Amino acid sequence: MSEITLDDIRARDAADPLKEFRDRFVIPDGVIYLDGNSLGCLPKDTPVRVNDVVEREWGEDLIRSWNSNDWINAPRRVGGKIAELLGANADEIVAADSTSINVFKALSACLQLDSSRSVLLSERGNFPTDVYMMQGLSVLSGGRVTTKLVEPDEVLNALDESVAALLLTQVNYKTGRMRDMKAMTAAAHAKGIPVIWDLSHSAGAVPVDLNDARADFAVGCGYKYLNGGPGAPAFIFAAQRHQEAVFPILSGWLGHAAPFEFDDAYAPAPGIDRFQCGTPGILGLSALEVGVDLMAEADEGERRAKSSALGDLFLALMDERCGEYGFTPACPTNAADRGSQVSFTHENGYAIMQAIIARGVIGDFRAPDILRFGLAPLYNSFEDVWTAVDTLEDVMKTKAWQDAEYQNRRAVT
Amino acid sequence: MSEITLDDIRARDAADPLKEFRDRFVIPDGVIYLDGNSLGCLPKDTPVRVNDVVEREWGEDLIRSWNSNDWINAPRRVGGKIAELLGANADEIVAADSTSINVFKALSACLQLDSSRSVLLSERGNFPTDVYMMQGLSVLSGGRVTTKLVEPDEVLNALDESVAALLLTQVNYKTGRMRDMKAMTAAAHAKGIPVIWDLSHSAGAVPVDLNDARADFAVGCGYKYLNGGPGAPAFIFAAQRHQEAVFPILSGWLGHAAPFEFDDAYAPAPGIDRFQCGTPGILGLSALEVGVDLMAEADEGERRAKSSALGDLFLALMDERCGEYGFTPACPTNAADRGSQVSFTHENGYAIMQAIIARGVIGDFRAPDILRFGLAPLYNSFEDVWTAVDTLEDVMKTKAWQDAEYQNRRAVT
Repeated sequence: MSEITLDDIRARDAADPLKEFRDRFVIPDGVIYLDGNSLGCLPKDTPVRVNDVVEREWGEDLIRSWNSNDWINAPRRVGGKIAELLGANADEIVAADSTSINVFKALSACLQLDSSRSVLLSERGNFPTDVYMMQGLSVLSGGRVTTKLVEPDEVLNALDESVAALLLTQVNYKTGRMRDMKAMTAAAHAKGIPVIWDLSHSAGAVPVDLNDARADFAVGCGYKYLNGGPGAPAFIFAAQRHQEAVFPILSGWLGHAAPFEFDDAYAPAPGIDRFQCGTPGILGLSALEVGVDLMAEADEGERRAKSSALGDLFLALMDERCGEYGFTPACPTNAADRGSQVSFTHENGYAIMQAIIARGVIGDFRAPDILRFGLAPLYNSFEDVWTAVDTLEDVMKTKAWQDAEYQNRRAVT
Repeated sequence: MSEITLDDIRARDAADPLKEFRDRFVIPDGVIYLDGNSLGCLPKDTPVRVNDVVEREWGEDLIRSWNSNDWINAPRRVGGKIAELLGANADEIVAADSTSINVFKALSACLQLDSSRSVLLSERGNFPTDVYMMQGLSVLSGGRVTTKLVEPDEVLNALDESVAALLLTQVNYKTGRMRDMKAMTAAAHAKGIPVIWDLSHSAGAVPVDLNDARADFAVGCGYKYLNGGPGAPAFIFAAQRHQEAVFPILSGWLGHAAPFEFDDAYAPAPGIDRFQCGTPGILGLSALEVGVDLMAEADEGERRAKSSALGDLFLALMDERCGEYGFTPACPTNAADRGSQVSFTHENGYAIMQAIIARGVIGDFRAPDILRFGLAPLYNSFEDVWTAVDTLEDVMKTKAWQDAEYQNRRAVT
């Protein structure tokens, strides 16, 4: 295979059907941003929208905005737009709370679907908050509900009649390994097990068709590929067939059938509304809506094709230019099995990541040894990938990562 | 008693030691805003701060802001500032999630303090979400945990060895009746019962001293008197003596002892940090922080004195000018027993409220028959109260409230 050149790369960027989206985002000078799987970039429309919400809707219209600016429907409105991206119906998703809280809602819902089952099943290496929320439910139950973690490849073997819910992340946050949602859901259903899909690294990143897969519940994050801003509201999907069967355990007033009647007794709202809880954070929802609207403008197939190509290029360039430095792909090399990221293990991963961040290439490190690079097809270019690998090569060749300043770990989310 | 004149009123405003705070808020032209107990006004500093968070911290600094702009500590930093307002230690409050979610955290914590107790006790007419969250826990427990609601005056009689938690709102959202936090807490403690105080209508509105009262847990709202913006993050207080005894049931990753180690097993963080759950909403927290900072600038005693005086004036003017129209105070007439609001029952309350809102006087209506007026001492003036009563008198005298347009109910939060 002949060497890839910068000219080749620039030709690919010039031919990219999504290239005009990059200018819809703020990309800081001197930064190659490959961390959109942790916090997506700022859409240029967002500051205008957020400022309008603050100055006009809150400042001028005040409490009237719950009606006049439709704040009261924001969780459903934004949820409906996310549903469009994920193969769900508009009345199956609501944007609300955090991913963790929504995991709890989904788990506690599954426990009601078949009360003879009491095991909450997930896999080792799943994003920790999913597993942690299982533990909280177990503690609250006094041990009646138990949690079970198996190795990723042992999930199918662990599906049995004791399992009340299978909680899986479609795209693993470290490795980028993507599960076959439809096949795994079918396997679980064959044992009567409802499946909760965590789409934090899927929504906006890879094609998802929740209803085609017969998913039962799903949750996901607003601040990664949906570009909703730091700590943006998350979302929850509940398949229509389950909605009326579930008493929402986080039974806050906005999930009530008639919240403004202020009854002393809770009566769940019909449908997806019962998965709302407290008063929605309007600033966060407004920013999220801009990100979701922008994502919806781009063709899903083009997004997926570009994301796969960016990943393939990253792997090829690493092989070509950094092959001698001890990086091992932690992600699938086959694009069909990979989400919208690449990752590599390296024993000095933390220091190497700090060294390239200091040179403007922002990826992130995940303990114990993973360098992770998110690939956001709306704003990342092929040249971004080129520069990232070029910088990695330079840092390895010059041993710059050995500088003392890169050795001390600090937490970064 | 001689009639109160507008000149008297203006003299009081001129002598108000807090009068300069009004100019720190956006007060829309033509609006008399008496709904700060539902959504507080916009501090003028907030748009600048929020825009800086969006454009610089998110847009330019991106993921680095979790460290460089201290996002990771925002829940503790803002919580610590709220603690200053409420007689708590900085390491006893965290700003996070919604009030409803925080009620769940506190209730599920109390259930762990003495596992022989299983009754969650509250009063009828408490703000519904508090009671609803009790119901959700009861359903999840399969009936082991039960909820009990008694009339407000029967709470003391209902304190017995079965009660795992007493959940009370200090200032009732409808009537403004204020409970004696210290005495009620002591009475509950005498029966071994921990008390959760909902401070949604207290924080920023009336003096609160959580540790002087030996409160066990507390929750409260950021968007009312703290002026944190629509759906602002809420807060939770956990007394230091309880923190280590509780496994946080909503055990999300940011409550973990080492969230960035990404362990498969949850280990609660020391202290108040374990009451965090998911990734915090930074936009909402930033706006809340501005409101809390502004509140902290004003003397607590001056705030309380003015709020009491505004309420006394409202009641006196209503008696003097609207006595013949069938309004009955729903709030205590004695300021010492009243939070920072007044309310009145009227059989045509809904239409009357719509009619005065149409004339620029914004209070709110709470089913079935309550007109409610929040009194925010930082931005409400004595003349605001004068104008409100003047408008009420006019609407009653002219029977304007009978217009058809004011008869159809719409939900307003």
